[in-house]
Amino acid sequence: MTTTTQAPQSPGAPKTARGARTRARILKAAEETFGSLGYHRAGVTDITRTAGVAQGTFYTYFASKEEILRELVMDLGHKLRAHLAAEILGSSDRLEAEERGLRAFLQYLADHPSLYRVLQEAQFVDETIYREYYETFARGYADMLDAASRKGEIRPGNNHHRAWALMGLSHFLGLKYALWDQRAKEGEGAFDPIVETMADLFQNGLALNGRDKG
Amino acid sequence: MTTTTQAPQSPGAPKTARGARTRARILKAAEETFGSLGYHRAGVTDITRTAGVAQGTFYTYFASKEEILRELVMDLGHKLRAHLAAEILGSSDRLEAEERGLRAFLQYLADHPSLYRVLQEAQFVDETIYREYYETFARGYADMLDAASRKGEIRPGNNHHRAWALMGLSHFLGLKYALWDQRAKEGEGAFDPIVETMADLFQNGLALNGRDKG
Repeated sequence: MTTTTQAPQSPGAPKTARGARTRARILKAAEETFGSLGYHRAGVTDITRTAGVAQGTFYTYFASKEEILRELVMDLGHKLRAHLAAEILGSSDRLEAEERGLRAFLQYLADHPSLYRVLQEAQFVDETIYREYYETFARGYADMLDAASRKGEIRPGNNHHRAWALMGLSHFLGLKYALWDQRAKEGEGAFDPIVETMADLFQNGLALNGRDKG
Repeated sequence: MTTTTQAPQSPGAPKTARGARTRARILKAAEETFGSLGYHRAGVTDITRTAGVAQGTFYTYFASKEEILRELVMDLGHKLRAHLAAEILGSSDRLEAEERGLRAFLQYLADHPSLYRVLQEAQFVDETIYREYYETFARGYADMLDAASRKGEIRPGNNHHRAWALMGLSHFLGLKYALWDQRAKEGEGAFDPIVETMADLFQNGLALNGRDKG
């Protein structure tokens, strides 16, 4: 929605391990800064101050505030997907993976509230950033569901529709119970009742006499 | 997140039918204006120009741009819920109501894209506006699910968790197929395949052998 500003010399990827660490530190600082101040109020100087680097160092790695937002959203997406992939590893089937994935997602969101804010705000900076985040997530999700279909772990059906539905389901449960309701996320196993409700939906649907009718 | 600005004299509700029509016209203009320009770029003068009223008339009904956003989100919520209630009227059971409600929601979003943008942007003006919109929706949804539980139309379970999950599911399917994918919403019955996928989920869950395991 914002017009793209003319980028300065396009900065390159870091060439050394030290450069990679610096770039990661600036990304982390951007996450904190956008998360606390919001994208519009946050300036590049807020990010560099938080990261403890000179302003010129920022521009070694990122062309603009908008570019670091784009990189940050991609980076947050990678990290979340890697985290979820690790958490569902070793699940006996897709249904168990759904349960473990949902629990892990809710806990991750409770632990990383700025992820939500940065992502939501990104859609008003450039909707393609937001859209690409979810399209990427949905492609991977649909692939996993397709694999589960082939193995006979889930019912035949349109796994793209399902992927979007399941992302939305997790997103809104996260919004309500991991971000808004302080009580809901306290204590070990706090999200278990939510995961159980969803496990029952995945296992049996909503209908009292579902399979008889089907 | 924005601090509340000092409100001028709190404007009253319209006292005449003509006043109510004028207020409704200003709300409609705000929906269009926020939807096309975005909240931050839109000014009160853009709204009054679109509505064809004098600036003073705006302040007869609304104290500020932030107040009209709050009123608009409440108004959009009322209208959507009234529309959905009418569309599911006469459903034979909750499962049919879920199917009809989802189809109606997707069509409504395709026809009213500014609803989505106004609502999403509201969370960065004042998160309570956004939260109250969904909390209100969730309360009504959970009540309907509770009634269906009592009638034995759906399985026992936590209907608050379910309400948030079902809202999220609709929201993301709407985002993808009613707002982003131009092809997906073309033609009569365009959303039927999506509704069928979800109807199968509601009826049978995801598990191939769901009821045997349960």
